Amino acid sequence: MRFVNRHLCLKTILLTTLLASPLVSLEAQAPAPPPRTHQTVNPDRSVTFRYIDATAVKVELSLENTQLPIPMTRDANGLWSVTTPPLEPALYGYSFLADGQPRIDPYNIETGGNVYFSARSLIEVPGDGPQPWDLTDVPHGEVTSHRYTTRIALGLRANQSEYVVYTPPGYDPAAKKSYPVLYLLHGWSEMAPGWVVEGKANYILDNLIAEGKAKPMIVVMPLGYGDTAFLKDYALWGNDEAIEHNLSLYTSALLNEVIPRIESEYRVSKDRDGRAIAGLSMGGLEALSIGLHHTDKFAYVAGFSAAVHRPAFIKSLPVLTPKATNLKVLWVACGTGDGLIEPNRKLAAYLKSQGMPVTAIETPGLHTWPVWRDNLVHFAPLLFQSK
Amino acid sequence: MRFVNRHLCLKTILLTTLLASPLVSLEAQAPAPPPRTHQTVNPDRSVTFRYIDATAVKVELSLENTQLPIPMTRDANGLWSVTTPPLEPALYGYSFLADGQPRIDPYNIETGGNVYFSARSLIEVPGDGPQPWDLTDVPHGEVTSHRYTTRIALGLRANQSEYVVYTPPGYDPAAKKSYPVLYLLHGWSEMAPGWVVEGKANYILDNLIAEGKAKPMIVVMPLGYGDTAFLKDYALWGNDEAIEHNLSLYTSALLNEVIPRIESEYRVSKDRDGRAIAGLSMGGLEALSIGLHHTDKFAYVAGFSAAVHRPAFIKSLPVLTPKATNLKVLWVACGTGDGLIEPNRKLAAYLKSQGMPVTAIETPGLHTWPVWRDNLVHFAPLLFQSK
Repeated sequence: MRFVNRHLCLKTILLTTLLASPLVSLEAQAPAPPPRTHQTVNPDRSVTFRYIDATAVKVELSLENTQLPIPMTRDANGLWSVTTPPLEPALYGYSFLADGQPRIDPYNIETGGNVYFSARSLIEVPGDGPQPWDLTDVPHGEVTSHRYTTRIALGLRANQSEYVVYTPPGYDPAAKKSYPVLYLLHGWSEMAPGWVVEGKANYILDNLIAEGKAKPMIVVMPLGYGDTAFLKDYALWGNDEAIEHNLSLYTSALLNEVIPRIESEYRVSKDRDGRAIAGLSMGGLEALSIGLHHTDKFAYVAGFSAAVHRPAFIKSLPVLTPKATNLKVLWVACGTGDGLIEPNRKLAAYLKSQGMPVTAIETPGLHTWPVWRDNLVHFAPLLFQSK
Repeated sequence: MRFVNRHLCLKTILLTTLLASPLVSLEAQAPAPPPRTHQTVNPDRSVTFRYIDATAVKVELSLENTQLPIPMTRDANGLWSVTTPPLEPALYGYSFLADGQPRIDPYNIETGGNVYFSARSLIEVPGDGPQPWDLTDVPHGEVTSHRYTTRIALGLRANQSEYVVYTPPGYDPAAKKSYPVLYLLHGWSEMAPGWVVEGKANYILDNLIAEGKAKPMIVVMPLGYGDTAFLKDYALWGNDEAIEHNLSLYTSALLNEVIPRIESEYRVSKDRDGRAIAGLSMGGLEALSIGLHHTDKFAYVAGFSAAVHRPAFIKSLPVLTPKATNLKVLWVACGTGDGLIEPNRKLAAYLKSQGMPVTAIETPGLHTWPVWRDNLVHFAPLLFQSK
């Protein structure tokens, strides 16, 4: 691939092109496209999924918010298909399992990245009219990715970390107006853009702001690992020391690197009443831990299906009183089909026992994005209303 | 997925959680992860690729910049593998073909989106020291995605179009300094973020600027379709009318929507000497067409493997003289193994016959990203040097 900077002597160069047809040439190295499959959302909101594999013995559909893989049926040509029952309007992740091996839909560019688990494709089951997570014709905020050199988080290539920032429509960096800020943390196995790519947090905020339901705010979505070694094995979720190590470094990176950078780069409120922290799963653990240890910095704290399953978590909390913490919202939510429901119930009960004004929320659903989008849709309107 | 806002009465709710183990619960709906495959870059820069498919009759590796699919060999357990010859340092797209069906690597989150062709996974073959497209510990620019309502481009959901903007390190919207601007267009079947996700244009600019090789500049990467109906069938590349329709609407959208928005939102130069336009494949056709028809607006024009295969293209150009156009750089480049090499040679010869100072570049390679990254690495330093 070394670059050869030679001006052409056109008349003397007669390299044979391997494929002469301009039609073929645009993707000369690609084979002829095979038959293309597509997924169909039917009028009753059932979805017909299709996947081609002529030799697999068994193909299943793995569908977000459905507990078990759904068997698919093969036709004579090796096209596997299944039609789901009617689904609630939502954006669903899906993949196929061919003899147990994960396969992504090759013809769907809407995918969610996932470092440890295999990636998923995304399909939308529309509702009656626009849904809160839809891209609609309303004024849009902007989404900016920042890379920076971390001195705290471990295991990143060239020590480069990332945070993604949503600024609301009309945000003007040259104006004097400042905005409240929500730190919104992703889950384990995801990267910094997760809340945009899968969570659609930017569209959710665009739509809530357009409807006057949420205050215009800045949303900061930072990479959520103190040490990416924590990503190497799912079994580390059974290792208290590994969890603590990751959380402790992450807390430091957020408080000492990300927040100061945001406050110098954006016109954000610098007092606690203009600052919120929320997260999902691992990010819920981080948000609850950081938020409850630093109520001088955050007036709004939320966990969405937070990974608070260790008994040590409640013990790790500081003494909490409503007066000393002065939290405006303390949100502890989980899907009722999520294996983390009981730890979240226990946490909510504990916080209530301390007299804390918990908003404890249960919604139908598993440990999945439809639950977390829904959480953001209902949590964001509670923020910064007294500012 | 309707949201149920009910505060918990913890002692009365006894829903059984389906999976009680907190370890399992974090991805309760996912099956136990199957054996994970990985790709290995060997010390000699050969790459060993692996893919599991116990039943496929034939599995091949589709590797970017390699003309034909590479056969893989099956072991007794259904693990297919192949080791390539040593490769030039570059970032390569790859996918697997199982009995002709495209399969993405399920365990690689680095993927390139592609609307019509199947997606690809990306793997890096490192060189000696950092390469121009690497994420390195230098000051980074920011990458911002903007959505807006188009009144010109057709076929977009809710008429929402997009442009992605790179601002160089140190860019301060509140300062008075203005920057030159490069409009950088993607290829057919890609979307607006393509030059970032696959092209690594932001890292390329970061590295060139850090080394003092390129002037700090703003790079605008807009969605490149006048009518997304043009995306429906690859055969439309044989239809002059469809090509013209898409190009004509796109020209209007870029000149009348994107550029005015950029000039109101960013501190960019508003004269031709501070404006460049370049693109790859379809984007090369667009950049050459728009640039050569509007030399009052652009002083730098470039096509990377431009889709200029129609004889009508040269005929469509205005009369071009060096004096009237006053272009500072006119770059026409193509890979020598690309089926578009001959049309690009013809175009370069025609432009030279008009006395135009063409920089005609040929490099080894096919119609692929390693060629286009390399083009940007060598084209960007030529820009705005006289400003």
